[in-house]
Amino acid sequence: MTHSVQLLGISNAIVDVLAHVDQEFLDAVGAPPGSMTLIDEAQAREIYSQMGPATEMSGGSVANTIAGFANLGGSAAYIGKVRDDQLGDIFNHDMQSLGVDIRLEPAADGAPTARSHILITEDGQRTMQTYLGACLGLELADITESTIGSPKAMLLEGYVWDIEEGPALARKAAQIARQNGTAVSLSLSDSYCVERHRESFETFVRKDADIIVADEDEIHALLGTDSIDALIRKLAAYGKLFAVTRSDKGSVIIQGDVTIEQAATPVEKVVDSTGAGDAYSAGFLYGWANDRSLSESAQYGTYCATKVIQQLGARVEKGLLDDFK
Amino acid sequence: MTHSVQLLGISNAIVDVLAHVDQEFLDAVGAPPGSMTLIDEAQAREIYSQMGPATEMSGGSVANTIAGFANLGGSAAYIGKVRDDQLGDIFNHDMQSLGVDIRLEPAADGAPTARSHILITEDGQRTMQTYLGACLGLELADITESTIGSPKAMLLEGYVWDIEEGPALARKAAQIARQNGTAVSLSLSDSYCVERHRESFETFVRKDADIIVADEDEIHALLGTDSIDALIRKLAAYGKLFAVTRSDKGSVIIQGDVTIEQAATPVEKVVDSTGAGDAYSAGFLYGWANDRSLSESAQYGTYCATKVIQQLGARVEKGLLDDFK
Repeated sequence: MTHSVQLLGISNAIVDVLAHVDQEFLDAVGAPPGSMTLIDEAQAREIYSQMGPATEMSGGSVANTIAGFANLGGSAAYIGKVRDDQLGDIFNHDMQSLGVDIRLEPAADGAPTARSHILITEDGQRTMQTYLGACLGLELADITESTIGSPKAMLLEGYVWDIEEGPALARKAAQIARQNGTAVSLSLSDSYCVERHRESFETFVRKDADIIVADEDEIHALLGTDSIDALIRKLAAYGKLFAVTRSDKGSVIIQGDVTIEQAATPVEKVVDSTGAGDAYSAGFLYGWANDRSLSESAQYGTYCATKVIQQLGARVEKGLLDDFK
Repeated sequence: MTHSVQLLGISNAIVDVLAHVDQEFLDAVGAPPGSMTLIDEAQAREIYSQMGPATEMSGGSVANTIAGFANLGGSAAYIGKVRDDQLGDIFNHDMQSLGVDIRLEPAADGAPTARSHILITEDGQRTMQTYLGACLGLELADITESTIGSPKAMLLEGYVWDIEEGPALARKAAQIARQNGTAVSLSLSDSYCVERHRESFETFVRKDADIIVADEDEIHALLGTDSIDALIRKLAAYGKLFAVTRSDKGSVIIQGDVTIEQAATPVEKVVDSTGAGDAYSAGFLYGWANDRSLSESAQYGTYCATKVIQQLGARVEKGLLDDFK
C-alpha cells in the first residue's frame, strides 16, 4: 500500500489568544484551573473584553500535533474548518508553511474562525475558554475519499465529538481509513471531553481505533479505573496500541500483553505545561510512522514533550529530534 | 490647564507578525538587517507565504510606547487607523484593555489593518517588512479638537510622514496642541525614515515640537552630524528637549545648555533588541508627565528599555516601574 502522507489530522482548527491573568481573574471566570470550557460567541466577546493584551498563535490540540509532526520531518495533511477571515488565514498559513497539506477550503460564510482564549496563571497552567465558531461547520460532506486520501495514519481528536456531526464524521473517516490500510488514531483531548462522550468514545476505541493517545486522567475517565495497574490491565484486553502519558511519571505504552514504561525527563522549570500531550503524540506517532520500535517511539514522544514544556508555545519546533535521533 | 489624559499617541496602528528566519531568508528578502521596509499588499502576501509559522501581537512604534506608558500607570489616548477586521479588533482590544482611550472608529471599508512582518534572526535582530494598509487612510479629517482633546503631551511618530496626509495632519495636530498647552513630542522612528523626510522633520522639530525622542543614528541622519559632541552642540541650539538613546552607551538628555548623560545598564543577554527605543520613550515620558526631573525621567527610560530587551515582545509590561520608583 502506498500512503499519500504519513499522518492526516482531523480536528478543530483554532487560533489561540493567550494572556497572563491572575488568580482573581480565573476565580471570576469560574472555570476549574487547567480546564477547557466551550463558550458561545457572546461569551467569547465578553471574556476577550475582560482579558488584557494578548498574543495570537495557531493552536488546537491535534492541529498542534500535526504541526509538530511536520516540524519533525514527517509528511502530514490536515482536515479542519476555518472561515475565510484573517484568523483563518493565519491558521492555514501556519500549517502550510510547514508543508502540511490543507484539505478543506475555508468557509465563505457562517461563523468566524474558532479561537481559544487561553488564560495563563503564574504557575504556568492554562485555562481555556474556547469558541468553536467555524469548526462547528465541519460536516460529514467534508470527509470523503478525496479529502482523506490514503495516509499511513489518521489522528482524530476527542473534541471533534463536540461538533454536531462529529461522531458521524469520525466513523465515516474510520471507514474510509479501513479501506486504505490507514491506522486510525484517537487523542482523547481532555477528561471533561471524555466525560461528555464516554460511551461513544468507548465504542470508537473498541471498534474503530488502532492507536489511542491520552493522558492517565483521560483513560481513567474513559474506563472508570482509579489506579495505573487497573488501567493497564483493562487496556491490555482491548488489544489496541495505547500511549498513555503520566506527566512527571513518564508514559506507558500498552499493546495487548506488551507494556513499556518510559520515564519522564526531569526539567528545571516548566515554562508552559500545556502542549505536552500534543508534543508527545507528535514524537510518538513520528516514531511509529517511521517504523521505529514502540520503545524508541515513546522516547521520541518524551523528548518532544520535555522540550515543549520548557518553551512558550505549544508546538514542537523544527528539527527538534535532529539532536536526539 | 486641565489635561484630559497625560499622553496622546498619533501613529500607525500595526499588528506584528513575528517569525524566526535564518540569514539565508533575510538575504533573499534583500533588506538590510534591522531595517523597516514599506511594502504593498501583493508583497505582503508574498513575504507571508514564504515565512514560517508566526505569532501575532499588537505593535507599531509609538503604539508600543503608548501601551507601555499605560502599563506604567499613565493615562493615555490613541489616534491610529485600523479596519473593522479581526486584526483591527486585536489592535484596539490590546490598547483598550490597558485603559487607553481609542479616539477613532475602525474604517468600515478600504485596506485591511496594517501588519508588519518581523523577521527575527538568531542574533535577536528584527527586520521589518511593513504593509501599512488601513493606516494609509489616516487623514486630516481624523485630527480634530474632539479627537485630540487636551492631553498634557502628544507623541507623533516619524512613520506618520509615510502617509499621504501625514505631514499635514501632524502640523494640524501640533496647532491644536498649542491651543491647549499640550507639549508636542516626536519620535523619529528610524534613520531611513529620517532620510525620507529630513527637511520636513527638521522644520517640524524647529517649529512645532517641544520634545524629541530619537536614537543617535536618527539624529545624525537629521542633522548630518557624525559625532556625539557635534550632535549635542547642534541640538543645544534648538532649545527643545531631546532624549537621545545610544544603545549600550546609554542616553543623553539635551535641553539648551543642559546636558544629562545617563549610562546604560549592562545586561547579560539581549533577547530581543527592538522595542528598546519605544520602551525608553514610555519611561522617559512617564517621568516627564509626572513632573519628575529630567535625570529621573532618563532613569525611568533606561529601566524600561533594559527590561524590554530581556523579554520577548516590544511592550513594557504592567507595573514595570513599581520596583524601581
